[in-house]
Amino acid sequence: MDLTSIIGIFFGIFCILLGQMMEGGNMGQLMQVTAAFIVFGGTAGAVILSFPMEDLLQSLKETKLVFLTGPVNYEAVIEKVMNYAQKARKEGVISLESDAKKEDDPLLKMGLEAVSDGADPTLVRDMLETFLSRMETQKNGAAKVWESFGGYAPTIGIIGAVLGLIQVMQNLSDPSKLGSGIAVAFVATVYGVGSANLIAIPMSSKIKLKAKQDFVAKEIMIEGIIAIQAGESPTLIERKLNAYLLDKKANAEK
Amino acid sequence: MDLTSIIGIFFGIFCILLGQMMEGGNMGQLMQVTAAFIVFGGTAGAVILSFPMEDLLQSLKETKLVFLTGPVNYEAVIEKVMNYAQKARKEGVISLESDAKKEDDPLLKMGLEAVSDGADPTLVRDMLETFLSRMETQKNGAAKVWESFGGYAPTIGIIGAVLGLIQVMQNLSDPSKLGSGIAVAFVATVYGVGSANLIAIPMSSKIKLKAKQDFVAKEIMIEGIIAIQAGESPTLIERKLNAYLLDKKANAEK
Amino acid sequence: MDLTSIIGIFFGIFCILLGQMMEGGNMGQLMQVTAAFIVFGGTAGAVILSFPMEDLLQSLKETKLVFLTGPVNYEAVIEKVMNYAQKARKEGVISLESDAKKEDDPLLKMGLEAVSDGADPTLVRDMLETFLSRMETQKNGAAKVWESFGGYAPTIGIIGAVLGLIQVMQNLSDPSKLGSGIAVAFVATVYGVGSANLIAIPMSSKIKLKAKQDFVAKEIMIEGIIAIQAGESPTLIERKLNAYLLDKKANAEK
Amino acid sequence: MDLTSIIGIFFGIFCILLGQMMEGGNMGQLMQVTAAFIVFGGTAGAVILSFPMEDLLQSLKETKLVFLTGPVNYEAVIEKVMNYAQKARKEGVISLESDAKKEDDPLLKMGLEAVSDGADPTLVRDMLETFLSRMETQKNGAAKVWESFGGYAPTIGIIGAVLGLIQVMQNLSDPSKLGSGIAVAFVATVYGVGSANLIAIPMSSKIKLKAKQDFVAKEIMIEGIIAIQAGESPTLIERKLNAYLLDKKANAEK
Amino acid sequence: MDLTSIIGIFFGIFCILLGQMMEGGNMGQLMQVTAAFIVFGGTAGAVILSFPMEDLLQSLKETKLVFLTGPVNYEAVIEKVMNYAQKARKEGVISLESDAKKEDDPLLKMGLEAVSDGADPTLVRDMLETFLSRMETQKNGAAKVWESFGGYAPTIGIIGAVLGLIQVMQNLSDPSKLGSGIAVAFVATVYGVGSANLIAIPMSSKIKLKAKQDFVAKEIMIEGIIAIQAGESPTLIERKLNAYLLDKKANAEK
Repeated sequence: MDLTSIIGIFFGIFCILLGQMMEGGNMGQLMQVTAAFIVFGGTAGAVILSFPMEDLLQSLKETKLVFLTGPVNYEAVIEKVMNYAQKARKEGVISLESDAKKEDDPLLKMGLEAVSDGADPTLVRDMLETFLSRMETQKNGAAKVWESFGGYAPTIGIIGAVLGLIQVMQNLSDPSKLGSGIAVAFVATVYGVGSANLIAIPMSSKIKLKAKQDFVAKEIMIEGIIAIQAGESPTLIERKLNAYLLDKKANAEK
Repeated sequence: MDLTSIIGIFFGIFCILLGQMMEGGNMGQLMQVTAAFIVFGGTAGAVILSFPMEDLLQSLKETKLVFLTGPVNYEAVIEKVMNYAQKARKEGVISLESDAKKEDDPLLKMGLEAVSDGADPTLVRDMLETFLSRMETQKNGAAKVWESFGGYAPTIGIIGAVLGLIQVMQNLSDPSKLGSGIAVAFVATVYGVGSANLIAIPMSSKIKLKAKQDFVAKEIMIEGIIAIQAGESPTLIERKLNAYLLDKKANAEK
Repeated sequence: MDLTSIIGIFFGIFCILLGQMMEGGNMGQLMQVTAAFIVFGGTAGAVILSFPMEDLLQSLKETKLVFLTGPVNYEAVIEKVMNYAQKARKEGVISLESDAKKEDDPLLKMGLEAVSDGADPTLVRDMLETFLSRMETQKNGAAKVWESFGGYAPTIGIIGAVLGLIQVMQNLSDPSKLGSGIAVAFVATVYGVGSANLIAIPMSSKIKLKAKQDFVAKEIMIEGIIAIQAGESPTLIERKLNAYLLDKKANAEK
Repeated sequence: MDLTSIIGIFFGIFCILLGQMMEGGNMGQLMQVTAAFIVFGGTAGAVILSFPMEDLLQSLKETKLVFLTGPVNYEAVIEKVMNYAQKARKEGVISLESDAKKEDDPLLKMGLEAVSDGADPTLVRDMLETFLSRMETQKNGAAKVWESFGGYAPTIGIIGAVLGLIQVMQNLSDPSKLGSGIAVAFVATVYGVGSANLIAIPMSSKIKLKAKQDFVAKEIMIEGIIAIQAGESPTLIERKLNAYLLDKKANAEK
Repeated sequence: MDLTSIIGIFFGIFCILLGQMMEGGNMGQLMQVTAAFIVFGGTAGAVILSFPMEDLLQSLKETKLVFLTGPVNYEAVIEKVMNYAQKARKEGVISLESDAKKEDDPLLKMGLEAVSDGADPTLVRDMLETFLSRMETQKNGAAKVWESFGGYAPTIGIIGAVLGLIQVMQNLSDPSKLGSGIAVAFVATVYGVGSANLIAIPMSSKIKLKAKQDFVAKEIMIEGIIAIQAGESPTLIERKLNAYLLDKKANAEK
């Protein structure tokens, strides 16, 4: 579970609604079905047109992960790789074949399979890097879906506002309608700017940053697998992988 | 046929028009020939000046493809390359000459020709990469045509709005004209922002993303052709190319 | 002559003026000497301060070329290089000395000279690439002059508008002056946004894209010269250079 | 202590408050609890959602350092490295083991340890560069937290303004409330634009630039350690490292 | 002396002031101490907080150079390098030691010293490139100071405008104060947008472009020094360096 994701999304919206109350407003003023149709419907259309189905589905999957997965534990990744390294040292790389079957991580699985098969070292590195670069493209695609939502929403909010103002202008002779009409038009602006800045852009940022942490973990795996295949000593492999750790505890352990 | 393209373009516009109705407006308010002339004519002029003829024509072609072509099937690409690989293994690379003639894909055709001719491996790679990079330039050119439409339209919408306001200001003494005059001016804003955000920018994004999928497919072909020429075993080639596949089914098959 | 440049620049401005007429306005409303002084004078000052003299002059030169030169004919470039290749094959590279003197293109001239002199292959490639990269810098400089015009004009248009509004505010008590005063102020906005989006930014884009086509032609020349120097067979050179051609006719010929 | 950080943050805010006074305004007008809730609460929510906990904490740490640490003294870094170089020359690299234990800088410590252990030169360079690139990611993460604050605050300020205007519009019939109501709405704009431009964006810029100076210092260390391991003469190492110094004094000393 | 810098900065401001006069305004309307305090004081604070002292001082130095130094004369640079090349050819590289002492350019000085000392060629290239990259960082830092001024000023101009409007709103019941109050508020906008677009952004652009010309000159020096050290013939060196020249005269001379 990702604490900052859960706190962040509620805290921002809560503060803004609280502010609205403190000003003497009420929730009802911010609930406008028409504005919602224009802003969220229009933005949804723009986003759907912008991306292939694959990216749209991936973005839903990553959105769930933003809330459900915690930070990557690099120490645990290194430990796992070290276990394989020690086993390979003692029992030979062929013994990793059974581990490959049980391994959950697709990159590590692919690497262990290739190493236990005795594949060519250059091929192994190429394959793992191709796979990682494809994963990177996929995750960035998901982040871009939210980013483009954050780009379209405020401008489509402007369309909503202008459409509202057009109606207002038809009733200029009736000053009592003027105020509430403009208020309706403004809600579209709030929907557009709010959904972009409180949800879409932060979500895109979080997906990207979580993906970056993941990539570091994957790089550790690739470095580890290649070192295992090269038959390097576990001590050496550990030293190499520990360079990925920044905090003092880890350095002290080394 | 690309489902997200077709749904996306209609859904966004539909929601906004629906919103307009729900607010008590009508379609007629949004139909302004003058505003259309200014915004779409001005934007068209800017786009035509911005690009060479070649890019403009390519962008029309790609726009059609955005709706007509579905997602790239990487498995099918790999299968096709594997067929060539197996044939080359059994009957020698010279046997690929007849396949080159029947092949539709220009990159694969060029590669098969060169391999069956016994061209130098470095030359083959250089040629294929030159061709791919030229294709990339061409597709990106097409995407940029729509991107620049999306950049010009909102600002030219502002010109339309300001021109409208100038007329409004001439009639300030006549309050009844004021409202409807401003309404006319606002329609130019809606045209500019709407055409940019509901059509042009999403179209540019979709063209770019479809091109990216294409490029991955082309990379698979290049990797495959080079491996075929190097005389690698079909099993090895398949393993190499499967690293481009991300979903579990494909990995399981491997 | 570049058709899209000539059509583009007139079509956009024509549509906007037509729209102005259709709204019941007239040309006179858009002719404001004061606004022109502020917007075009201010923008000119900003552009002149931004660039060295060399870039400013180059940008005038490129602006002329935007209208006068048509698209690059890659086939013709390849044909020219192939003529040199065949001559070198038959009569030796020394025979290219006389061609170097007649050659118009500075890059090709430099390359032919160096090859006929028997210069070191690495030196030839380095020299040609240095020269190409310097040309690239120069052309991009010219494109950036128009790009920065397109960046300054709208904001200096805002200065014009605000200066106009300051005068308007002085006469608030006189409502008859209000409307026409604001109209004057708006013209500065139209000048700023219009000159940027109908002329400056498209011009910058066209210069850049024409330069890109030029660079591909120059790359073909460099590839060709280096292959000639390496003594490669004309058939091989032609195959290499044809990889730069994308359209089917060219591929069919190969 | 960083003088420009301390002067900069107070000077900007002071000038703006002074201006407010000079216009006949007072501090009270700029103190609006409601606006603060909306702008700072909303922005805080967006920032918290955008980043992993790790980046948020790092950004607090770096913010402190912006004020507390002075400019990096490259001469001192070179001197320190030179001391190790001379010791290694005289007593052998093994003698650096005790220095590694006392060394504060984590990169230098890791390098000295590896060198005194007789680790492979390629491994040492890889480890140090991995560690540096990880540090870079971490520092940039901290800078991005402030940068995204600076991006969210002005737009959430617009939400605050629009929410305020909605209340104003409800009271249009009462002109006396109109003015002060709009004033309240404007304070949200000032909070958003002000906190972004006087604090958040400058802070992000300072963190990034201080990190860059740090990286140059780290590069000097890496170059030094690798030269020490390669057994280069102290004179040579000093010449190499002095190339990092730009000012005349340093060059004269050389 | 740089002609475009001097003309550019005066011409832009002159045209805008002239426009202000032509509209019937006067200089006094644009002189507002309060607005100046807010906009320039606030912007100064933001800029000071954003940069280390070193960059701020460097930017003052470069600003002076924007007006005082003319364009780089590449021919003269090549000639100077050629003189050293010829001397080295005749009297040996050791003879360059005395020239190194007299040489003003720090990069050329460092290179000549190293060459006359018989330093390792790889070391010489590394040192010169390290020094050049450090110079690049320093000059870009100076350009970024003005760039960030140009970024902050318009938004802090908005703060000034909004603070002004707050005062205006307090006096809504008194229409005579309304107009002049708004006028005061607008001056802050003019200060912000004007100082950014007429001075700061152009200055940043000019510093960057002058630095780029400088870098080309430095690259010529580095190429030359390395060729001198490699003992290449003066004719060859001249041909190599002439590839940096684009204009016909230079090419004809070659």
